[in-house]
Amino acid sequence: MRCFVPFAVEAPKSRLAPVLTPGERRSFATAMLCDVLDALDTAGIAATVLSTAPITDDRVTDRAAVTVDDRALTTAVNARLAEETPTLIVMADLPLVEPADIQELLASEAAISMAPGLGGGTNALAVREPRFRVDYHGASYLDHRRAAADLGATVGTVDSRRLATDIDEPEDLAEVLIHGTGAAHDWLADAGFELDTTGGRVGIQRDG
Amino acid sequence: MRCFVPFAVEAPKSRLAPVLTPGERRSFATAMLCDVLDALDTAGIAATVLSTAPITDDRVTDRAAVTVDDRALTTAVNARLAEETPTLIVMADLPLVEPADIQELLASEAAISMAPGLGGGTNALAVREPRFRVDYHGASYLDHRRAAADLGATVGTVDSRRLATDIDEPEDLAEVLIHGTGAAHDWLADAGFELDTTGGRVGIQRDG
Repeated sequence: MRCFVPFAVEAPKSRLAPVLTPGERRSFATAMLCDVLDALDTAGIAATVLSTAPITDDRVTDRAAVTVDDRALTTAVNARLAEETPTLIVMADLPLVEPADIQELLASEAAISMAPGLGGGTNALAVREPRFRVDYHGASYLDHRRAAADLGATVGTVDSRRLATDIDEPEDLAEVLIHGTGAAHDWLADAGFELDTTGGRVGIQRDG
Repeated sequence: MRCFVPFAVEAPKSRLAPVLTPGERRSFATAMLCDVLDALDTAGIAATVLSTAPITDDRVTDRAAVTVDDRALTTAVNARLAEETPTLIVMADLPLVEPADIQELLASEAAISMAPGLGGGTNALAVREPRFRVDYHGASYLDHRRAAADLGATVGTVDSRRLATDIDEPEDLAEVLIHGTGAAHDWLADAGFELDTTGGRVGIQRDG
């Protein structure tokens, strides 16, 4: 299935500012993108990065084609859906995703199959209904369910912790340290991050 | 499979104090327990509530047997594991759990099958290895993996967003409002909680 991974080149992952510099955020966001592209590749999907600007980082260009569309996320994705379906849209900040999770999305026979993110987002979406359009603002999972219902399109939901775990906040980094095995995990380890299990809840700390 | 659901009768869910009174926290915790018991029942599991004190609330006593053990969580669970295996341990604060998630835990052939929670906890655990003991402090998922490895026991991981979503903090309530369909969802709705989608991230608000 045709697949796009949206990626914001400028100032990505602003909510990680308390723990990472702007340059580090760009590099870490790219590492997460690499994990997503690797999972898609192993699942047999040749993905295209739908980027807000040209990408020169060979970690990305070695892995996937890049299409530049500098419009807002929702607009850029809807332009791709208008071109052709079925189309798979997978967010770039899912470093825990594994090929089996992608296969589960592809195996669904629903017109719209979705993997909800924590907090009501839509982390991955396989669209087989040509009239369906996304709206990523707010609780997009609920909005997408309603939009599908308005079209009389069937909806399937993939129940996956790995697909649900988008990395936005400093506390989310603990999930990558606990469960990650790829580029994003290694990036954090190289940057000196480790789990802090001294308190009641698991957090992160950074050395040196 | 024999199954226990640990439940703290006194002062449960203290991290929900910013949004719920002590009495409300007890009632809401009981509603979540009911959802867990209902999912287990539909999955064919007759669960026993492993409670820190006697329970008189007929929402619980109508649904399950209750065993009282006022020791710490880890100690009380290990006493049950020492009695008999296989034994299934499911946390009481998983109101999104569905029967299929329980079936997936039961279907695993691993000596220890686990559903990790967000933040490194262990939300559900099917123990088929008689020598295995739990330790719920800190990043228990990693500790349990190590403990299984030390015994030469195989480990399986169930990748489920619903099993991963334990409800501890006020922001977690949004997950119940978005995805819940049972007693905990209805409790929150009756208490006036609704989704707040006015900001960038989905939150909760309470009317009246």
